[in-house]
Amino acid sequence: MLRYTLIHRPTLSALASLGHGSRVLVADGNYPFATAMHPRAELVHLNWRPGVLDVDEVLTTLLDAVPFEAATVMTAPPDAPVTAHDGYQRILGPDVPFGSLDRFAFYDAVRAPETGLVIATGDQRSHANLLLEVGFVATA
Amino acid sequence: MLRYTLIHRPTLSALASLGHGSRVLVADGNYPFATAMHPRAELVHLNWRPGVLDVDEVLTTLLDAVPFEAATVMTAPPDAPVTAHDGYQRILGPDVPFGSLDRFAFYDAVRAPETGLVIATGDQRSHANLLLEVGFVATA
Amino acid sequence: MLRYTLIHRPTLSALASLGHGSRVLVADGNYPFATAMHPRAELVHLNWRPGVLDVDEVLTTLLDAVPFEAATVMTAPPDAPVTAHDGYQRILGPDVPFGSLDRFAFYDAVRAPETGLVIATGDQRSHANLLLEVGFVATA
Amino acid sequence: MLRYTLIHRPTLSALASLGHGSRVLVADGNYPFATAMHPRAELVHLNWRPGVLDVDEVLTTLLDAVPFEAATVMTAPPDAPVTAHDGYQRILGPDVPFGSLDRFAFYDAVRAPETGLVIATGDQRSHANLLLEVGFVATA
Amino acid sequence: MLRYTLIHRPTLSALASLGHGSRVLVADGNYPFATAMHPRAELVHLNWRPGVLDVDEVLTTLLDAVPFEAATVMTAPPDAPVTAHDGYQRILGPDVPFGSLDRFAFYDAVRAPETGLVIATGDQRSHANLLLEVGFVATA
Amino acid sequence: MLRYTLIHRPTLSALASLGHGSRVLVADGNYPFATAMHPRAELVHLNWRPGVLDVDEVLTTLLDAVPFEAATVMTAPPDAPVTAHDGYQRILGPDVPFGSLDRFAFYDAVRAPETGLVIATGDQRSHANLLLEVGFVATA
Amino acid sequence: MLRYTLIHRPTLSALASLGHGSRVLVADGNYPFATAMHPRAELVHLNWRPGVLDVDEVLTTLLDAVPFEAATVMTAPPDAPVTAHDGYQRILGPDVPFGSLDRFAFYDAVRAPETGLVIATGDQRSHANLLLEVGFVATA
Amino acid sequence: MLRYTLIHRPTLSALASLGHGSRVLVADGNYPFATAMHPRAELVHLNWRPGVLDVDEVLTTLLDAVPFEAATVMTAPPDAPVTAHDGYQRILGPDVPFGSLDRFAFYDAVRAPETGLVIATGDQRSHANLLLEVGFVATA
Amino acid sequence: MLRYTLIHRPTLSALASLGHGSRVLVADGNYPFATAMHPRAELVHLNWRPGVLDVDEVLTTLLDAVPFEAATVMTAPPDAPVTAHDGYQRILGPDVPFGSLDRFAFYDAVRAPETGLVIATGDQRSHANLLLEVGFVATA
Amino acid sequence: MLRYTLIHRPTLSALASLGHGSRVLVADGNYPFATAMHPRAELVHLNWRPGVLDVDEVLTTLLDAVPFEAATVMTAPPDAPVTAHDGYQRILGPDVPFGSLDRFAFYDAVRAPETGLVIATGDQRSHANLLLEVGFVATA
Repeated sequence: MLRYTLIHRPTLSALASLGHGSRVLVADGNYPFATAMHPRAELVHLNWRPGVLDVDEVLTTLLDAVPFEAATVMTAPPDAPVTAHDGYQRILGPDVPFGSLDRFAFYDAVRAPETGLVIATGDQRSHANLLLEVGFVATA
Repeated sequence: MLRYTLIHRPTLSALASLGHGSRVLVADGNYPFATAMHPRAELVHLNWRPGVLDVDEVLTTLLDAVPFEAATVMTAPPDAPVTAHDGYQRILGPDVPFGSLDRFAFYDAVRAPETGLVIATGDQRSHANLLLEVGFVATA
Repeated sequence: MLRYTLIHRPTLSALASLGHGSRVLVADGNYPFATAMHPRAELVHLNWRPGVLDVDEVLTTLLDAVPFEAATVMTAPPDAPVTAHDGYQRILGPDVPFGSLDRFAFYDAVRAPETGLVIATGDQRSHANLLLEVGFVATA
Repeated sequence: MLRYTLIHRPTLSALASLGHGSRVLVADGNYPFATAMHPRAELVHLNWRPGVLDVDEVLTTLLDAVPFEAATVMTAPPDAPVTAHDGYQRILGPDVPFGSLDRFAFYDAVRAPETGLVIATGDQRSHANLLLEVGFVATA
Repeated sequence: MLRYTLIHRPTLSALASLGHGSRVLVADGNYPFATAMHPRAELVHLNWRPGVLDVDEVLTTLLDAVPFEAATVMTAPPDAPVTAHDGYQRILGPDVPFGSLDRFAFYDAVRAPETGLVIATGDQRSHANLLLEVGFVATA
Repeated sequence: MLRYTLIHRPTLSALASLGHGSRVLVADGNYPFATAMHPRAELVHLNWRPGVLDVDEVLTTLLDAVPFEAATVMTAPPDAPVTAHDGYQRILGPDVPFGSLDRFAFYDAVRAPETGLVIATGDQRSHANLLLEVGFVATA
Repeated sequence: MLRYTLIHRPTLSALASLGHGSRVLVADGNYPFATAMHPRAELVHLNWRPGVLDVDEVLTTLLDAVPFEAATVMTAPPDAPVTAHDGYQRILGPDVPFGSLDRFAFYDAVRAPETGLVIATGDQRSHANLLLEVGFVATA
Repeated sequence: MLRYTLIHRPTLSALASLGHGSRVLVADGNYPFATAMHPRAELVHLNWRPGVLDVDEVLTTLLDAVPFEAATVMTAPPDAPVTAHDGYQRILGPDVPFGSLDRFAFYDAVRAPETGLVIATGDQRSHANLLLEVGFVATA
Repeated sequence: MLRYTLIHRPTLSALASLGHGSRVLVADGNYPFATAMHPRAELVHLNWRPGVLDVDEVLTTLLDAVPFEAATVMTAPPDAPVTAHDGYQRILGPDVPFGSLDRFAFYDAVRAPETGLVIATGDQRSHANLLLEVGFVATA
Repeated sequence: MLRYTLIHRPTLSALASLGHGSRVLVADGNYPFATAMHPRAELVHLNWRPGVLDVDEVLTTLLDAVPFEAATVMTAPPDAPVTAHDGYQRILGPDVPFGSLDRFAFYDAVRAPETGLVIATGDQRSHANLLLEVGFVATA
């Protein structure tokens, strides 16, 4: 067993080939994983059952392994703010800029060659997808 | 043996990587499966013999596993309504919108990157192809 | 669409590499497919849903494509004759010798190198597995 | 051994994934198989030695397995009618329309995504290539 | 998103090829997954971080998908009963017989050809491995 | 198109990795190809339709490409000499020793690691299999 | 050992899938093999050590196996005629037309889909690359 | 163990298929390896831990194996010259021309088909990526 | 770039599938990697050039990622103690038991199914191989 | 182009995973390559045409890349000493011990797991096979 916080082979493997500017999608359970991603990205299934794992759990552990410098969510419906988004911002902290894209623009962003990893979660909340951009690890 | 209604490994596998907006083709026996589909879609052969399985059987079982929010058929000839289409609408229910496309426009729709699964049936009826769009599973 | 009765690509492919003395298992839905077969045999999933396809349907169509010269079933419990077996004998006809093996001896027979094809069905009947031996096609 | 007339595994496999409108090339021995075909088509080598198999033999057996509804040949040189073409028309019968394309337009037609199968023969005759379009199998 | 409780593609795929008598290992985080399993079993990584997922979570969801008829754990040290084992028995119910094997005999049982699936969890408890035997799904 | 007599890619490829003492099976149409061969041998399908190609055709062309120094057939039934065998001896010439083995001993010989190539023909004659041993090509 | 002059498995295999109009590159040792070829061409390494094999040796043996009907070299520098080119013309004979292309146009010609085979040699001479076009083998 | 200075299998393999004009990226540890490279380039991981290996070590050993005739770095920020770049120039010598490209133009250069090898290092310095162009090895 | 000390994709991937009792070989540069290891172990090349990386560097970084509970070296020659071994003991600490095996017994230990990872280093010292046994990570 | 003497990708790749005690077969043109080697050894085809390359050429270049510490040939016939063997000894030098094995014992030695590389040459001389054992590269 690895002594690190992230011990998941498929996720570690994919992250180890990414870097500054690569995109990672933490997708909710209803995301069309295989049909709305870049074909050479790696697809990791962490959608065990509805609700498990959720995006917050995945995000928190990813942050132990890699930094993120930007985040994008699906634009919330006009009269229905998505509380999940607030949670993501709290976990990422105030320094990470947050953007949003409409459903089909969001799909296009995940289909771009910058996307290297798509993690399927079982998150049941609507509009819960989170597209992250990997940051820079400076000299210790 | 799985305790679910859909127990078919190739179909379960493919569906588990799809989501809201992904397309599933349930093709009749004369459909040009390999040459009129998206190259990264998964092709499942359930065409055992002429007539078995038919599209209705496949559709009914698929509905146990995933919701569909839209359906498209091949446009029926002017003076020859396709009775199979009525059956599909009964199975899907009144809330699922139904569209139709000419033969070659239909092929193009199946060749789009949204298509993630093509199921070959042995259905012998003419114009019996059915292109489905996966819906959204809300929190239980 | 093929003009033959058997039109199923994975099954046709596997049968076309078999011959006199090769074994084909038509397994019921509870058979441990992947763990009780020869590792180089081809595994075909026709278990769509519980009950569909059943062993009789598969056997009948296979007979259109290849002859069988022997059959083996799992030994029925002492006081519970398996009616499925009678059906198989009717379909195969009186000239095909029928044998039976206990559960674990049956598994061993399917694990032997003679087995080239395992077809998973959705047959829900107990003891419904059928191990067939391919016969000889004489000059027309 | 299969009880059908076409017993060739690679060809049966490829045909079983094709359908109405898919193209099958029966190529003569000098055709540039690998460099003038669609990259996802299946390439089957039946070119055993010069002259064996020839296109007529392949065509005749294919017709037992699938119907064809159109055929295209390479345009014959102005003053050198290709007798092979007459033979193909006799085998296909008067109801199958025949067209012809110049050498490079013919290559382009084989490179289109409709092409699902290329069969290399050993036919030594010049301009002996035959591009076929799969027809429709109606209910028996 | 699948409408079932178990929605995890790699696990659904592996289970769909297993049956009566196949073995499934739900391994704790320190189990030597790759070096103490049957080489043809499928290895699924659900060890996201230490403690997540745990064996109880995995077992509970597996039970929704397949029945188990027997269970084996690693023998607890003489003076240190393993409380995890009591939890497993509660989840499986009183009808499932429970056995135990020493560490190296346990490894041998997982290396046997009956094992078709090994699920890596992040469970941090000592002696928390659970080897299950798939049961029989009777006619509904 | 190659200028040689043997122009068949899969056969040329396999033969080019064999040598003195390697075995090549030219199998009749009823031979259990996939289940009675060495697993690392290459399997080539030249069984186009019943009767085509036959073993004599395959043998004659093979001889253009490689020498053979020994041959083995299946032992003929006591009162039914196999005329095919006489034909093979005529083609191979008087210097090649001929042996015979009973059906199951013959299968064992083809399952040995010396076997590097199995060619499936459509030969319909009974006991028509021919196991050849590659000879030595001396300096020109 | 094959009785032919060309006995090299990878080259025989590739040539056997080519034909009239396919391109074969015999590259000198400094050619950027993997980055300036068509991605579906087959890459064969015959560059054993500097100078061995050279392009003349490869060309001479290829001619035993296939005819060529045209050749292209890299344009020689204005004041430095490439003597290797004269050698190629002598080997190919006066009937094969010779053309030349600048370095980057030459790369583009090798990147075209007509290219089916790239043979890396160890030829150390500058501008020694030779792009060949396969000819037609007429009836014997 | 090889007697050469470069003994690393994946790097030797990739270099042996490259040549004059092919590009090799020696990437620093933060480079987005998998998402900013040509998809057919080979990706080699030499990023063992932060700082090991560094770009200088990799460059020095590469030079023993292949010559380089040009180099490109990422443009340094206006007021922060990158001392790593001076080191690269010293190692490569005064005859190798040096260029620079902005971050996204640099990514585009690595995504071009000329790139055949990407080596991931653990170099922690900012802007430390080095894109090399393979030179020409003249006759000894 | 991962925030961990071990950032090497192939090594992280392999370790993430190992556990208590799995063996990891850190091999010196002269070890016969491919011919003296278990065929299902993963082989990682960190032998960049002679001397780089060495076993100490690899061992130190591995220890950040996984614990080891036992170590085995090749028995030193009678009159030539291997100073490398003392270094390994210092790095591993006094609690890790050390054993030694003769050359061929050592090879056998690496060929056993417990071995899941072989890391090739460039260490030039004689008898410098180090076979490690993964330990147990207790609850934090 | 690599600056080394051995520039052949498949051979460099294979050698880079071998080491002290691994076996390399340089086979003459009649050796049964695929059927008398260890299944996990790598098979390299350098048999371009009869006589080219020969064993001496291959041996000489291999020696630039790796040391050998022992050699084995096929036992020469009683009254026909094999002059090729004397040449091998001259190339290897007086310090490399030479052994010989009968034909079938020689095959068994090549089938052992120590064999990691088999190089097919076109050498036409009888009994010209040469089995080498890789030596030890000491610190420079």
